[in-house]
Amino acid sequence: MRVLIIGGGGFLGQKIARALAASGRLNGAPITHVALADLAAPAPVEAPFGVSAHAADIGDAAQARALFEASPDVVFHLAAVVSGQAEAEFDLGMRVNVDGTRNVFEAARALGTSPVVVFTSSCAVYGGEIPEAIEDWTQVNPQTSYGAQKAIGELLCTDYSRKGFIDGRAPRLPTVTIRPGRPNAAASSFMSSIFREPLQGEEAVCPVEEDYALWYASPRATVANLIACAEVDAAALGENRAFALPGRVGTIGEMIEAMRRVAGDDPVRRIRFEPDETIRAIVSGWRPHINPRKALMLGLTADASFEDNVRYFLEDDVRREPA
Amino acid sequence: MRVLIIGGGGFLGQKIARALAASGRLNGAPITHVALADLAAPAPVEAPFGVSAHAADIGDAAQARALFEASPDVVFHLAAVVSGQAEAEFDLGMRVNVDGTRNVFEAARALGTSPVVVFTSSCAVYGGEIPEAIEDWTQVNPQTSYGAQKAIGELLCTDYSRKGFIDGRAPRLPTVTIRPGRPNAAASSFMSSIFREPLQGEEAVCPVEEDYALWYASPRATVANLIACAEVDAAALGENRAFALPGRVGTIGEMIEAMRRVAGDDPVRRIRFEPDETIRAIVSGWRPHINPRKALMLGLTADASFEDNVRYFLEDDVRREPA
Repeated sequence: MRVLIIGGGGFLGQKIARALAASGRLNGAPITHVALADLAAPAPVEAPFGVSAHAADIGDAAQARALFEASPDVVFHLAAVVSGQAEAEFDLGMRVNVDGTRNVFEAARALGTSPVVVFTSSCAVYGGEIPEAIEDWTQVNPQTSYGAQKAIGELLCTDYSRKGFIDGRAPRLPTVTIRPGRPNAAASSFMSSIFREPLQGEEAVCPVEEDYALWYASPRATVANLIACAEVDAAALGENRAFALPGRVGTIGEMIEAMRRVAGDDPVRRIRFEPDETIRAIVSGWRPHINPRKALMLGLTADASFEDNVRYFLEDDVRREPA
Repeated sequence: MRVLIIGGGGFLGQKIARALAASGRLNGAPITHVALADLAAPAPVEAPFGVSAHAADIGDAAQARALFEASPDVVFHLAAVVSGQAEAEFDLGMRVNVDGTRNVFEAARALGTSPVVVFTSSCAVYGGEIPEAIEDWTQVNPQTSYGAQKAIGELLCTDYSRKGFIDGRAPRLPTVTIRPGRPNAAASSFMSSIFREPLQGEEAVCPVEEDYALWYASPRATVANLIACAEVDAAALGENRAFALPGRVGTIGEMIEAMRRVAGDDPVRRIRFEPDETIRAIVSGWRPHINPRKALMLGLTADASFEDNVRYFLEDDVRREPA
């Protein structure tokens, strides 16, 4: 069982690699090799199997093909230009999120083995004129270029799978919070930083009101669900490879109160509210009320509470001083 | 008012050009020029304004750009690899239906004038696991490569419009019947030929059962609706530029009986039923029960009965011997 993680330098790619290293197996078979690829060669991960690191720009078809030379059985394709950047730099978003994804699917197709490809889509595909409660059969109607580009990836994923070129799965990720690391160009970046920075003694700015509601999942639940996506039976996926992952709906205010219950008043005092219209314009097009029926039927799961998300962050991601 | 019709050699492109020639105006302004483009330079059309014919392969970005040198105000983009061929020749379908459409949108964007672009999508975007009655907010879930490629064009059309690059409109065409001309590689080709050929004394083969139901519109209604699509206010289109055009639902059996009422028993006797599994596999994924709410609110219209479709064909398309 050989695994390729494209976007392997990001926090999800690294966490998936560490989870695979911990279990040593995927879909019932021992893992023999994990290749981590990103624009810059990713940090290696300690593992009981071989791990290689590769620098590649998937927007270039030849570089995407080169990643597949070792003939992976399972591919996690996480690489993307994130929402804020795709909105500001339209052509770059098209090149990486559309052309890059197509290059990845084409490289997988060229193997002739129909490998499993888990393509991370996003709940940013929802928006605009759709009913409030989103079902698996609700129109995707993205109101951002990032969402449109992810929706195009979903269509390709389903059609390449229907044709037998790949065995694709396109889970739509909730906003993943609390994400470790530093703020990035995702419009959703604040949805982690307003918890992550205060929990570590730093100030953070919240650009939306307390009543802004989001559909979210912890990194721990997301990694478990993405690995499960690689393991579910293709037949159970039916006629559409794209589906919403389980998550929770909560307002910023409710999530802040959850952090208070776990970590006390001090972190909460470090959050400053400063409205930002550019960010609000993007995230207000996203939709929090999602009924992830297919994902639940596949056995995928959500977090139990945002308190858990806070605890997971403290356990998994906060660097402790050596005792 | 300068108009460009890409796919101007096809029956819809020719009929749109003739309708524009008859009215001399589009969206309240006098037409000064119509350019007809297709793989081979289309037949010219008699008109009170200049008409030019151009050969271009839109799969080639430079050739697509060349079509926009005269800076059209309104573009009808009808060119496509049809359903049966896109299923048999996947890469050709991707090249023309995805890359070609993107090349057209990019060429329109490069003008800097945000021209109106009417992109003909298709009800083939619907399929799979969706409710029986299709609303404007029902998930597109294509079960053919043609449908997937059209759905990708829709997403691009909406996002390019949201960004102000073009003023796009992506009506989803019902099956257009009775289409003039000869059978083609569309899986829906029989939905015209079982009427067109018998009405002209020839035999025709029906590859599906009499109870197969389709969502259809006449060429006359379709041309009127496409021209209206170029004229509707952008604001009325809301947050999704793709929407189903009005049509009628009917079974093959009901449509044959309508032909009998208009043209007698003889044409009906010329239809032979011979099941074809390849065609059935494609068209059984299409969905006939569509509620085209947005299109009706925009003032677009459906035929009154299939009898009308038969009469329109006899009036508009059957070559009469000179008296």
